[in-house]
Amino acid sequence: MSWLCLIVIVFATGCQRPAEPPVISVPSAPPPVPSAFSPLDAARITQVSLINALMVGRYDGVITLGELMQSGNLGLGTCDHLDGEMVILDNEAYKIVSTGEVIKLGPTETTPWAVITPFEGQARQELGPIGSLEELDARLDGLLAEPDIFFAIRLEAEFDALTVRSVARQNPPYRPLDEVAKSQRVWNYERVRGTLVGIRSPQWTTGLSVPGYHWHFISDDRTRGGHVLDCKFASGKLAYDRCETWTIRLDPKHVMDGEDLSQDRSKALKEVESGRGK
Amino acid sequence: MSWLCLIVIVFATGCQRPAEPPVISVPSAPPPVPSAFSPLDAARITQVSLINALMVGRYDGVITLGELMQSGNLGLGTCDHLDGEMVILDNEAYKIVSTGEVIKLGPTETTPWAVITPFEGQARQELGPIGSLEELDARLDGLLAEPDIFFAIRLEAEFDALTVRSVARQNPPYRPLDEVAKSQRVWNYERVRGTLVGIRSPQWTTGLSVPGYHWHFISDDRTRGGHVLDCKFASGKLAYDRCETWTIRLDPKHVMDGEDLSQDRSKALKEVESGRGK
Repeated sequence: MSWLCLIVIVFATGCQRPAEPPVISVPSAPPPVPSAFSPLDAARITQVSLINALMVGRYDGVITLGELMQSGNLGLGTCDHLDGEMVILDNEAYKIVSTGEVIKLGPTETTPWAVITPFEGQARQELGPIGSLEELDARLDGLLAEPDIFFAIRLEAEFDALTVRSVARQNPPYRPLDEVAKSQRVWNYERVRGTLVGIRSPQWTTGLSVPGYHWHFISDDRTRGGHVLDCKFASGKLAYDRCETWTIRLDPKHVMDGEDLSQDRSKALKEVESGRGK
Repeated sequence: MSWLCLIVIVFATGCQRPAEPPVISVPSAPPPVPSAFSPLDAARITQVSLINALMVGRYDGVITLGELMQSGNLGLGTCDHLDGEMVILDNEAYKIVSTGEVIKLGPTETTPWAVITPFEGQARQELGPIGSLEELDARLDGLLAEPDIFFAIRLEAEFDALTVRSVARQNPPYRPLDEVAKSQRVWNYERVRGTLVGIRSPQWTTGLSVPGYHWHFISDDRTRGGHVLDCKFASGKLAYDRCETWTIRLDPKHVMDGEDLSQDRSKALKEVESGRGK
């Protein structure tokens, strides 16, 4: 039977080196990218559109949340038609509309401007007491002492006081954001448990993103939230990621309208971001 | 011999469905991302560091070409220690040093600033005659009429005249780029066949990238090249891609040196990019 063994060996060898490679689902073109470059690396921040585009009134959603959230699980932004403040936390997206109501967003909803990151919270510590948003930002500046790096931040606390705002849904023709923000709604909360979602962007993102800290809030019970204007808490759980990679996805639909997006609108933006109106 | 055929069939079947899956290199963690977001989508431009970081003298390479070129096959930039002008074309990287020599770069060489894209050349047309670089840029402005979108451009031609420059390798402590550029070397070529590699960036990239057109050249025989200051050709083959996604990879090593990267250095940059020295 030795010749039969030979046949077996021949075919066994054939099995290890098949003439036709087996059909396995391998991504077609690109080779694997290194970890620092993975779309789902915590070091990566993805942004939709430019803040100056929002400033001049480009409020139509340009990307679905389903697509956006393939780039992360934590973020903030606004919604189609500027309909409220958006928070993305633990893979869920919410909008806080101008009535104060919190609405869970589905994957087909869209956003005209957002920032998102695959948050891991690689660094964690207790933080507090903090008497104001200004004090929070200053405390974090001491901690995150790299002005040219983005940081994604999550802060859980029972807030003694919290001031938030939201804006009302707009209809075309859209007015500029600094005009719309004049009619923002502002609320104060007391003793509310929840999470601040924050992105800190370098000063050189002026015109493109929101330089400095940008904070949105959502309560643990998901019934309260908004763009944060002030806060106070005794003790909070801070978690953050350093983000060295910043991706901007431009809006191809809005590129032909002739607005000068390189114009310096930082003064108006500052009023939009931190102004409390009348 | 029919039972022998059976053995053959058994083993042949075994070949098609081996018990042990063959060892094939499959990317480990992240699921494939959608096309608009793939690192190798032609709509994506990847940039290393900020032009203002280069302006203040951050000339140390921060990423290897091996890693950079996982993000594309066409691009431009400079080399570690500011040692020459870099061109990436057809998956090969070259530097044109200050002697005019063209040196092929290996995957372990590094760059402090570069822009790269997975070029496809989705739009193509004949272009010419063109009498100057200024005329080329103006002609393209008419063609690529979306000022807020990046474009990656490839132009093959026999150039009647071409003016290029390169800069000499620097040693620490580094002087600012506008000072170094004063001692750039400038050459004129006549009747040279080759390729212009160009990236057009929106005006709002000021401080971060090179707004407008940025052109590097390499000859077909890979013996001549440089940063393009002027050109003239009767007819060329133009190919370009629209790029809606812009990724900046920051340099984590250089973020703590206290230089203000948000300062407006655009006037100095303009002199660096298009000045011909004395």
